[in-house]
Amino acid sequence: MNFASDNTAGISERILKAINEASTGFAGSYGGDDATRALEARFAEVFETDLTVFPLATGTAANALSIATITPPWRAVLCSENAHIMTDECGAAEMFTGGAKLIGLAGRNAKYSARTLAERLETWPPGAPHHTQPASLSLSQASEFGSVWQPDELAEIGEVARAHGLKVHMDGARFANAVASLQCAPADITWRAGVDILSFGATKNGALAAEAIVVFDKELAASLPFRRMKTGHLLSKGRFLAVQLLAYLEDGHWLKLAGHSNAMATRLAEAIEASPKARLAAPVEANEVFAYLDHTVHEALQTAGADYHEWPMSVPDKEDPPREGEVLARFVASFQTSGQEVGRFAQVIGGL
Amino acid sequence: MNFASDNTAGISERILKAINEASTGFAGSYGGDDATRALEARFAEVFETDLTVFPLATGTAANALSIATITPPWRAVLCSENAHIMTDECGAAEMFTGGAKLIGLAGRNAKYSARTLAERLETWPPGAPHHTQPASLSLSQASEFGSVWQPDELAEIGEVARAHGLKVHMDGARFANAVASLQCAPADITWRAGVDILSFGATKNGALAAEAIVVFDKELAASLPFRRMKTGHLLSKGRFLAVQLLAYLEDGHWLKLAGHSNAMATRLAEAIEASPKARLAAPVEANEVFAYLDHTVHEALQTAGADYHEWPMSVPDKEDPPREGEVLARFVASFQTSGQEVGRFAQVIGGL
Amino acid sequence: MNFASDNTAGISERILKAINEASTGFAGSYGGDDATRALEARFAEVFETDLTVFPLATGTAANALSIATITPPWRAVLCSENAHIMTDECGAAEMFTGGAKLIGLAGRNAKYSARTLAERLETWPPGAPHHTQPASLSLSQASEFGSVWQPDELAEIGEVARAHGLKVHMDGARFANAVASLQCAPADITWRAGVDILSFGATKNGALAAEAIVVFDKELAASLPFRRMKTGHLLSKGRFLAVQLLAYLEDGHWLKLAGHSNAMATRLAEAIEASPKARLAAPVEANEVFAYLDHTVHEALQTAGADYHEWPMSVPDKEDPPREGEVLARFVASFQTSGQEVGRFAQVIGGL
Amino acid sequence: MNFASDNTAGISERILKAINEASTGFAGSYGGDDATRALEARFAEVFETDLTVFPLATGTAANALSIATITPPWRAVLCSENAHIMTDECGAAEMFTGGAKLIGLAGRNAKYSARTLAERLETWPPGAPHHTQPASLSLSQASEFGSVWQPDELAEIGEVARAHGLKVHMDGARFANAVASLQCAPADITWRAGVDILSFGATKNGALAAEAIVVFDKELAASLPFRRMKTGHLLSKGRFLAVQLLAYLEDGHWLKLAGHSNAMATRLAEAIEASPKARLAAPVEANEVFAYLDHTVHEALQTAGADYHEWPMSVPDKEDPPREGEVLARFVASFQTSGQEVGRFAQVIGGL
Repeated sequence: MNFASDNTAGISERILKAINEASTGFAGSYGGDDATRALEARFAEVFETDLTVFPLATGTAANALSIATITPPWRAVLCSENAHIMTDECGAAEMFTGGAKLIGLAGRNAKYSARTLAERLETWPPGAPHHTQPASLSLSQASEFGSVWQPDELAEIGEVARAHGLKVHMDGARFANAVASLQCAPADITWRAGVDILSFGATKNGALAAEAIVVFDKELAASLPFRRMKTGHLLSKGRFLAVQLLAYLEDGHWLKLAGHSNAMATRLAEAIEASPKARLAAPVEANEVFAYLDHTVHEALQTAGADYHEWPMSVPDKEDPPREGEVLARFVASFQTSGQEVGRFAQVIGGL
Repeated sequence: MNFASDNTAGISERILKAINEASTGFAGSYGGDDATRALEARFAEVFETDLTVFPLATGTAANALSIATITPPWRAVLCSENAHIMTDECGAAEMFTGGAKLIGLAGRNAKYSARTLAERLETWPPGAPHHTQPASLSLSQASEFGSVWQPDELAEIGEVARAHGLKVHMDGARFANAVASLQCAPADITWRAGVDILSFGATKNGALAAEAIVVFDKELAASLPFRRMKTGHLLSKGRFLAVQLLAYLEDGHWLKLAGHSNAMATRLAEAIEASPKARLAAPVEANEVFAYLDHTVHEALQTAGADYHEWPMSVPDKEDPPREGEVLARFVASFQTSGQEVGRFAQVIGGL
Repeated sequence: MNFASDNTAGISERILKAINEASTGFAGSYGGDDATRALEARFAEVFETDLTVFPLATGTAANALSIATITPPWRAVLCSENAHIMTDECGAAEMFTGGAKLIGLAGRNAKYSARTLAERLETWPPGAPHHTQPASLSLSQASEFGSVWQPDELAEIGEVARAHGLKVHMDGARFANAVASLQCAPADITWRAGVDILSFGATKNGALAAEAIVVFDKELAASLPFRRMKTGHLLSKGRFLAVQLLAYLEDGHWLKLAGHSNAMATRLAEAIEASPKARLAAPVEANEVFAYLDHTVHEALQTAGADYHEWPMSVPDKEDPPREGEVLARFVASFQTSGQEVGRFAQVIGGL
Repeated sequence: MNFASDNTAGISERILKAINEASTGFAGSYGGDDATRALEARFAEVFETDLTVFPLATGTAANALSIATITPPWRAVLCSENAHIMTDECGAAEMFTGGAKLIGLAGRNAKYSARTLAERLETWPPGAPHHTQPASLSLSQASEFGSVWQPDELAEIGEVARAHGLKVHMDGARFANAVASLQCAPADITWRAGVDILSFGATKNGALAAEAIVVFDKELAASLPFRRMKTGHLLSKGRFLAVQLLAYLEDGHWLKLAGHSNAMATRLAEAIEASPKARLAAPVEANEVFAYLDHTVHEALQTAGADYHEWPMSVPDKEDPPREGEVLARFVASFQTSGQEVGRFAQVIGGL
């Protein structure tokens, strides 16, 4: 019962096979190989548009480089106050931008509304050089609390952004889970909704280590080869990033993996909802489950060997705070999570 | 005949096997896994001392993070004017230090002498805040021109460094080739010679992507977990870095791979020396061969499909410049280079 | 009636005289002059302790350099959410630290309580490298909303800081106003209360441009000569900073100037309190007055030619929000503010 | 006999008068004052073109901000290997750019030729992201060794720059001395010769502390208000920078001051040339004199109380190295240098 995170899982069979197949022979280094060359066509097909792709090994790098590309040092990026870039990346965006500010916005389930955004922008201190002016915004799809931004929510956000001249970054560490959940075209929740640059994650969903910066606004792509190199994020044996991403996108493999994770999360959520001693702390729309557990449930799960995180941060939703004796827990399902494990979880929690 | 670089090769069988074996099941993320936990003991054994290890995916990151750890923004690092950190990393060290200066030193074969170093330090402008003061030095083992620093050369350098209060970084992107060449204990060319922090490379010698910062001075290690995270270089599925490094170091695998590369390079060098129309541009002490080729040799090799780099930079050694009609070429042998390929090379070059 | 800011005033007579006297003859540059050499003794006397002083020309530089000295790039500084360093310096601290995070704390009148601070520190996410760890805190004396930290408040804050290993910075852009208000020893609200490094301001209180970083913890001073130079903040004709500061501190001149400003602010406050159509938005403890004005008062003052700022930011105190038709205004008194001007203000506001 | 530097001098009478006159009354802060508003018209007149001006207090700040404006972090600026930005500013340009590289070019008298520049650019490693690509160049007018760039030399440099898409920065810490020496229009050695951005110095030539970034390419000016604020270089009482610069430029005051300094330097040079025991180490074209002194001359000057610097760096010109027993000395004349002092110098040196 390992629900600690989706990055505690291993490598999907297809991706592993691709690595094995690429492991012999010679190939151009630093992206000068056939697999890397094939990447943009594959992504363009998936996203139904012309684009530029920069593969790399970590999501933090994808986020910080993306944000640096759309935010000069003296300006600000707006994001959820619970965004991964705000709370979990040790200030990588601040460093790669050269000292830009991250401004947190409140909102339920680690999402902020177009209205909150607009109000903040309209009351921003005027453009004197004292006051860092906003340059961009970032949102996580799926969100840090397991929610998904609906296409119309994104379109509204995108409209506010355009009206204020802001570029839009999407942290898609769990992008596959969002697409699988929404059953929409990837384009609908990215460039069609105004997203300029996307951190496209594969690691949490079956890759060894493979992420990609996907740039929809071609002009933004010019500096990225240099920014990526200057931060040590250009891998020499680039083929091994590329073959992971190619296998990931082939035959809808990425969505099958994510669909499975989401389904397992839904079953975890059902077990929680069925219990009188546990309750969801946020709607479950992707592969993460946040729940308040009565301490007896928490203890029973621990005893049964379940692996998950007590959540140290403020609760997902201040309007629904924990009650006396409750613990806030996060469960994450991955492509590797089995129905058996989930069944065992339901059994433990149902037996109380 | 691919001699373009050692990073055009694939993955060694043992390392690939280790990745496959680790690919299933759950493991703690961000280095909280058994393989990562086993790393320091394995490195400690190899280096015969207590140490701290930070695995990551690229050599540029290992170098820039190491240098940032020993060089504050307002000070300088001295290195060869031909050092990889100086010419090939797009200023990563300048960025990760926050703007420190890299000062290039001249010397044969991308090495500088203890005397050159001492003279530079003794004539440094005095400690007024105008003049960036040196904090550290960096040297590459093996060097960028295929040379190897002898233990006594390193010990002399280390002594000058200590006398001036400088910390010492070694760029060991080809550390295995140096050890295999010198047949020495790894300790003899690192901490025993005064090296404080080492970029230990495995990627060029058979790994998919695996490097490690090895810190011999424990105090220096304190900031590195945060520096690595803040620059996006902490991999979430850390086990896959760790198992590569463990397999690499097991049973002397790393030295066998490097020994093979070195032997292949020696055979390439012999073929060049045997030709009246080609000559070595630098002694061949590891797995790189720099040679001046008569243009007829260059054309014949191109026709035969040999893959190698014409070297765009200033020649390795100004005391031995190219002659009319010569081309400076770099050939690199890897663990994957076959005797057959080298034989074919010798045949082509010998036939002229 | 210029109440726009204390930096719309000119130069006090004593300081101007000192500049004139220093204007001829030769003097060592970059701080190698007699006036600069005399500075530390003068400051040591005022602060009753051994210390190090770095004069410079702007408060933003003093703040950002001070904070960079006590906060490495991967850590955080806590401050009021309304701190000048947070809202008015265009992210200078983020830049000079190399990307550290500023974390805002809530509290009345741009002050935070020791309790708020302690709670935040106790619930800080654990020390995994993902989560920026706090290194320091900053507080402004007087505060951005015209309040003053009492010695015992500071001592409590200092205690929490020490318990959590944090260094303490004080932004003393209006330090003189605070000392004049509290009638305390400068030591009591700095090093005796746990302040490690102080931005000591003189510009807002009668200097042409003169601030000083005062370092109470000698070890922190080592890097500052280089940091100041590297950011272009070492003035070549250093004597002109030094003579301003010497004249400022001589014979209690600084406290006389500040005492006058404070007294004028108090009279402004009294006029506001006497009016049924205006009310204070924050207690007036130094030389700034924040007030809610009925729009008729605002219009009358505008018509009478009063110069002051409508305050664009969120109100000083959320527990006391503006009422329908009110405007939030800031009035600042300076050493140059005359009783006549204040009288005229009282007349205008009293006539409604 | 103070020839230590031109920044050991005080303030010119006219500039001091302007400061005194501006010292009373209220004025908008942060550049919102009449004097600052008048600046651009005055500079536009002097430079015969439309331009943008950013006053600040130090030349290092002017240089580092200018270079950051034309050089992204991942690119390089070319300059003389003896440039002030390279050797005397503690890496300020590296910091403000976010880690760009400074590449030093050789040349006589701290100038490099268009040919040296072109050759370097033509042999630059190709545009792979490994190799920092040049973005800009910087040159100092007058140079660090007291030479002046002729208009045609600058035009040639400017042509090479344009051909390679480089922006051009001029460090004009001693711009007035260059103009006074060349008797040319300021435009001829700036924008007409291809200079995009100029550090215009006044401090070394009679100001208390006043420099200005003059931007000829309007587009480059957009980020500077924010860059200047973010680095703490926007002075609150901006009028005091502005009135210095206005007085400096009025009635050709700046050129009279510089003309005097140059004339004094010429007389120092004549005295040296007349002596059999001293000789010039570089041509004297502005207000700096570099000379080799026989040790007896050096001792006699010291005994007579002359203040000047023994030069610690490599000699100005390697083709004319010092001889046995010689000392390399730098003498700088300022607006404050008197004919009497120079006469005394000539007497001492002539008496040997």
